[in-house]
Amino acid sequence: MRELYIETQEEEPEIKLPLPRVGITNLRTVAKINWKGRVYTFIPTFEVTIDLTEEKKGIHMSRLIESITDAMSEAIEEEVKRIHTSLEELALAIIKRIEEKHPHRRAEVWIKTTLILEKETPTSRKISYEPYDVEVGVIKESNIEKVLKVRVIGNTACPHAMANNQGRTHIQRAIGELEIRTDFEENIALEDMIEVVESSFSSPTYTLLKTSDENAVVRRMYENPKFVEDVAREILAKAKERFKGRIHVRVISNESIHKHDVIAEAWA
Amino acid sequence: MRELYIETQEEEPEIKLPLPRVGITNLRTVAKINWKGRVYTFIPTFEVTIDLTEEKKGIHMSRLIESITDAMSEAIEEEVKRIHTSLEELALAIIKRIEEKHPHRRAEVWIKTTLILEKETPTSRKISYEPYDVEVGVIKESNIEKVLKVRVIGNTACPHAMANNQGRTHIQRAIGELEIRTDFEENIALEDMIEVVESSFSSPTYTLLKTSDENAVVRRMYENPKFVEDVAREILAKAKERFKGRIHVRVISNESIHKHDVIAEAWA
Amino acid sequence: MRELYIETQEEEPEIKLPLPRVGITNLRTVAKINWKGRVYTFIPTFEVTIDLTEEKKGIHMSRLIESITDAMSEAIEEEVKRIHTSLEELALAIIKRIEEKHPHRRAEVWIKTTLILEKETPTSRKISYEPYDVEVGVIKESNIEKVLKVRVIGNTACPHAMANNQGRTHIQRAIGELEIRTDFEENIALEDMIEVVESSFSSPTYTLLKTSDENAVVRRMYENPKFVEDVAREILAKAKERFKGRIHVRVISNESIHKHDVIAEAWA
Amino acid sequence: MRELYIETQEEEPEIKLPLPRVGITNLRTVAKINWKGRVYTFIPTFEVTIDLTEEKKGIHMSRLIESITDAMSEAIEEEVKRIHTSLEELALAIIKRIEEKHPHRRAEVWIKTTLILEKETPTSRKISYEPYDVEVGVIKESNIEKVLKVRVIGNTACPHAMANNQGRTHIQRAIGELEIRTDFEENIALEDMIEVVESSFSSPTYTLLKTSDENAVVRRMYENPKFVEDVAREILAKAKERFKGRIHVRVISNESIHKHDVIAEAWA
Repeated sequence: MRELYIETQEEEPEIKLPLPRVGITNLRTVAKINWKGRVYTFIPTFEVTIDLTEEKKGIHMSRLIESITDAMSEAIEEEVKRIHTSLEELALAIIKRIEEKHPHRRAEVWIKTTLILEKETPTSRKISYEPYDVEVGVIKESNIEKVLKVRVIGNTACPHAMANNQGRTHIQRAIGELEIRTDFEENIALEDMIEVVESSFSSPTYTLLKTSDENAVVRRMYENPKFVEDVAREILAKAKERFKGRIHVRVISNESIHKHDVIAEAWA
Repeated sequence: MRELYIETQEEEPEIKLPLPRVGITNLRTVAKINWKGRVYTFIPTFEVTIDLTEEKKGIHMSRLIESITDAMSEAIEEEVKRIHTSLEELALAIIKRIEEKHPHRRAEVWIKTTLILEKETPTSRKISYEPYDVEVGVIKESNIEKVLKVRVIGNTACPHAMANNQGRTHIQRAIGELEIRTDFEENIALEDMIEVVESSFSSPTYTLLKTSDENAVVRRMYENPKFVEDVAREILAKAKERFKGRIHVRVISNESIHKHDVIAEAWA
Repeated sequence: MRELYIETQEEEPEIKLPLPRVGITNLRTVAKINWKGRVYTFIPTFEVTIDLTEEKKGIHMSRLIESITDAMSEAIEEEVKRIHTSLEELALAIIKRIEEKHPHRRAEVWIKTTLILEKETPTSRKISYEPYDVEVGVIKESNIEKVLKVRVIGNTACPHAMANNQGRTHIQRAIGELEIRTDFEENIALEDMIEVVESSFSSPTYTLLKTSDENAVVRRMYENPKFVEDVAREILAKAKERFKGRIHVRVISNESIHKHDVIAEAWA
Repeated sequence: MRELYIETQEEEPEIKLPLPRVGITNLRTVAKINWKGRVYTFIPTFEVTIDLTEEKKGIHMSRLIESITDAMSEAIEEEVKRIHTSLEELALAIIKRIEEKHPHRRAEVWIKTTLILEKETPTSRKISYEPYDVEVGVIKESNIEKVLKVRVIGNTACPHAMANNQGRTHIQRAIGELEIRTDFEENIALEDMIEVVESSFSSPTYTLLKTSDENAVVRRMYENPKFVEDVAREILAKAKERFKGRIHVRVISNESIHKHDVIAEAWA
């Protein structure tokens, strides 16, 4: 029955310019990943776009949205998701659905969510569940590229104040971001990227800390004073060694002695 | 081994004033709910507080956090969660864990998350997965009170512009919020609260809309023009009829003809 | 010419319920204050509401917005603003404009902005310009009430970790909020409220810090370790002594050892 | 007296990698612009960075911050600001201050603020003050480049729904962003960029609208239905014609029939 409707999107646009990215954004829906044999449920935020040629007025948002919802509902209904073993596999699965429904030359799927990972606390060896913001983008044009982003909460203990105050210094929460843009086939785990960032702060942070653990974290921060510059360099050096692709690092420190933040950024 | 440490929290504070709410906030961790026989996973944001008497310097954050993480890890590890059949049951389960670990007179647990509900589109009868922000608070003092909040995205079609423009009018996205504060035992489903709000707009909104559905939504908006005032009144009237407790309603319309928003608010 | 249009707002609503707050929100516009003889310009965010009786379908948003814009443009055009000597005087001036234009029983004006205050750094005695978020609400019903809010960035140095780690401890940025609800006539300066909060942290913070100043701030933090509980109690005690009205205090500490925050809240 | 302190920043870093961007961010302070002969005050948010060579451990944040505060306090104290006739001139003035204080090869200053512009309403010809988010970045390396960004709130009336519903359609708020990266010397006014975006929606929006104006806006939206694709293309075409530099366009529509947004993006 679709042909009974006027398809304004198929008309010629007044301004004949191609658009590389047209689609939906800020869409929240449920997704399931079969990760290392265990099914995880997320409610990520999606951005899905395709390109639009200069000859057409618009993309069929309705068809596009249908494609996306289909891929999502597949993820909900099937018991075991052989295909969705990572966020990037899920993104690619959505792109494949779109390919069946809407002509295009370029497609992108971006998935933003929170990962919860199990960590062990430093001395009491208790399990602590730690949250990490991650984002995965898959861009398919002539080849398939992916972008992997992690955002990790840590801290910095200022080495300059420490040197000038007999070992006392200002300490603060800091946020480290690592982004890698690479071939889809490149095998990079978000968990490994998180580890690279988390191990580069003055100390990792934990949701659960018994007093003995808290003391260990405090000791570690004082033994390991770092500028945001040091944190950014360490993330960059480790990432260059472990991962193949274009790397972007950004560290922001929520200074405890200022009302503003400090920043260090690098790319390779 | 805990007794080897100095417990600063147990000391007498310099300023002897009781504090009704002390604890942790903005904690994100995983939670599972067994809802109508099916296990749902969320990554909510938690705020958990207890009161502090005037005689003690601080609460044992470390113990409190441990209590919370325990309740959370229980939710992760057990296969079927008999106890957590709703967000408010989960909140109460956390309060019960705290009761075993830390003396207090008042405890609060607040859980903020996103619910995804299945809806049917108006004419194609396809399934569309819709996101809703919800928050649940449980406050235990002498009795147990709960606060239930839902936030629903809908729309308004302005009746004043419609009357002055031969049936044409400005339309925009609007957000309706409904909060109910009531006894813990009161049986109120978040889904019912969502339905009350969603049915009070000019039209409900859908993630997936085929052209026939889109037309149905457009028709419904024009047949059902509403000010934010109308939406707020309708939510209030329905909520008063269906739910027992103190009610708060807030509707915000992201005007398409202005850069600012309009608001209507009421309570009962 | 206004009477040529249909005034849908004047019609009888389907659901006859009064609404205490109807109006505009998230409106950004320019405002000028003549504060201690010097004119300051702000671009605040406004929320302005009036009540709606059960007999009318809506308020005249267009008239209401006109009233607000009038008061604002007056503030822009006049060289010296004798009337607007504080944010609350400006709020009251807006309410008086509304009174001439739209019948109502209750009116509220809320103004949110950033204040920049001059501070002197601890040892180099340089001037440092410090930003503070403030909000002022004026509510006129039978009498006139005002609500004053300040939000100040400071820090906490944990006394528990300090006691257990030979004087070393974790330090972090903290945010203190103080709200006072009182008679309009009560004379309370936002600057005094800011001072109450800022002086209650382990140390105040500064935008500009030379090394000698930074050392002074570091020393002060270690000499003055505080839980969020201590900060909240000190703000509450000082506020009770200095200001007349209902007081609400909230302190949030962005823990450097955790990914979550800790909170202490009190009211009087 | 500075030389009495240990200058940790001057030490050799453990990891010898250069960092292109190190500095401060999220700094809010007051700034004054003498724009077309009239002094305007803003409270912008600043990000200021310089590069760090591989031989040094850190930049002198304290010196850098001092440079920035100096430039800001100059802006506050002087009666007439001959030098700061635009946000980009102010940014360049900050860079010049840094050049006197800290060696570097690359410096960036980013200033984010809100502009309020006077508009005339469509039929009543009243003045309406309209807010626009803008950001200006100046990057000085071998040459000086600037980045100008504006963010404008408008609307879209869907042409597809209009064609399928006898002239009725869904309408919603939309946000258009235009960014231009060009030589510092290129003469581009933020006001002209705003006009390009604002004139590309189905209709401009206004803070103040009398009923006759509201009717004019409603008429204009129905006579001028547009997809986000149409808005993006029109902004792109106009910007290419009027401005010299690299152009980025992004339009987001807060759909009134969906809970998510739609997006169109292009660059040239």
